[in-house]
Amino acid sequence: MALLLLLFLANILTISEGTCEAGIIKQIHLLRPRSGAGGDSIPGLSCMSWRLAVETNNIIGWKTVPEECEEYVGHYMLGKQYRKDSRAVAKEASLYAQSLKLAGDGKDIWIFDIDETTLSNSPYYAQHGFGLTIYEIFRAEPYNATLFDEWVMEGAAPALPESLWLYNKLLSLGIKVVFLTGRQESQRNTTASNLKNVGYHTWDKLILKEPSKYSGKTAVFYKSNEREMLEKKGYRIIGNMGDQWSDLLGTNTGNRTFKLPDPMYYIS
Amino acid sequence: MALLLLLFLANILTISEGTCEAGIIKQIHLLRPRSGAGGDSIPGLSCMSWRLAVETNNIIGWKTVPEECEEYVGHYMLGKQYRKDSRAVAKEASLYAQSLKLAGDGKDIWIFDIDETTLSNSPYYAQHGFGLTIYEIFRAEPYNATLFDEWVMEGAAPALPESLWLYNKLLSLGIKVVFLTGRQESQRNTTASNLKNVGYHTWDKLILKEPSKYSGKTAVFYKSNEREMLEKKGYRIIGNMGDQWSDLLGTNTGNRTFKLPDPMYYIS
Repeated sequence: MALLLLLFLANILTISEGTCEAGIIKQIHLLRPRSGAGGDSIPGLSCMSWRLAVETNNIIGWKTVPEECEEYVGHYMLGKQYRKDSRAVAKEASLYAQSLKLAGDGKDIWIFDIDETTLSNSPYYAQHGFGLTIYEIFRAEPYNATLFDEWVMEGAAPALPESLWLYNKLLSLGIKVVFLTGRQESQRNTTASNLKNVGYHTWDKLILKEPSKYSGKTAVFYKSNEREMLEKKGYRIIGNMGDQWSDLLGTNTGNRTFKLPDPMYYIS
Repeated sequence: MALLLLLFLANILTISEGTCEAGIIKQIHLLRPRSGAGGDSIPGLSCMSWRLAVETNNIIGWKTVPEECEEYVGHYMLGKQYRKDSRAVAKEASLYAQSLKLAGDGKDIWIFDIDETTLSNSPYYAQHGFGLTIYEIFRAEPYNATLFDEWVMEGAAPALPESLWLYNKLLSLGIKVVFLTGRQESQRNTTASNLKNVGYHTWDKLILKEPSKYSGKTAVFYKSNEREMLEKKGYRIIGNMGDQWSDLLGTNTGNRTFKLPDPMYYIS
């Protein structure tokens, strides 16, 4: 168990000692990633096809990973393919950013989502299982505290290395960064210090959700509205990156969008 | 060669004798699909990641399959994973369609693209290589005839079995079908008979591109415009299915969209 966490943490370029809690990773039986043909061994359902359908926004509104794909998703997330898939997106985004002629007036911005985009909650899911979902948590009222909120408040989420690499690339090109997250205003300080601690040292704006303003609204509505306000202030959204289609659909989506993989949960 | 074509044709539920032309499938060296971890054996590029990035609209505007992924794409398209991936989309679409309360006034329509959606051009690509692209052909003027046009005019494209299954399901639910394709008006008769010959026996509309109206316009523009006209006529687009994001993005996209896999070519 400690070994698995260590392997995972080493994998995301952060070496630390794992803490040991009995039986909390029962979903993960093998250390060897089965990200390739893993789905094929599952009768009746191809987990690879399920994942592709999720990533292409064909399967929507799902609340849990299909039980028979929990292991597959765990192996994917902790294995090499997730990193390779993320790298392909970051690389493409960087090529795109390099190709732009920027105005140089400080109004060219890149929007990053936070969870599973700039920060990774994989340590949390490795402990609590990849079949769980934070869907309801994100939609819930701010005082409906949960295990996931506790994890967020620890401020211990590692960076997604590929996104951190892209972040530094964008800054070096003179592009400003805006974080736009479904995390709540009450989580601002923890989120800001978490971001800084793992290498996101500067940003133009860190936009968190005001529950009073967006209670009961979807992420698509909230994020579209915030992006519209940014554009009204004269910002040009040259890129927009997230792990959920709700980060990338709606209005004012930006010149180009980049979808990072996330077969763990769905936010509408 | 004849064996491979036969295997392929058997795979798509149509058994016929392949014709043999020397050396035309040099891109395909193995009969065994390498759709699983195929990308892993290619240094410097994960073809699985490339394919995912293409399917999620991260990598756009590409004109050819990367050379090192040609084989991978060939094996994917002729192997089981393409079929499984298509089945997952058709199945999800069918569950969605079943869940709807239809008005029963004949105005509920489902839009299908044609190439790589209802009809498959895999026999053409199996002959001419999976690295080629029809991007330019689709954008070209109608008189710029090509090998692909010749193939289309043969009217011999098999059905994508999963889409044909969905098509029959939709009809049984009382949903009308509209085909909206980038194929040109001059290809109407061939296209209509090809559709009928492989099982698409009825439809409400078959919309082909009028070159005089859409010359130099993108597929997104053309298809958005045609969908808008349908909605103005009182049709409700309850579902919209295609293999290209240009089938599914833009305006009047329908209540829900379904993206079928296509790592062979990109149409903007």
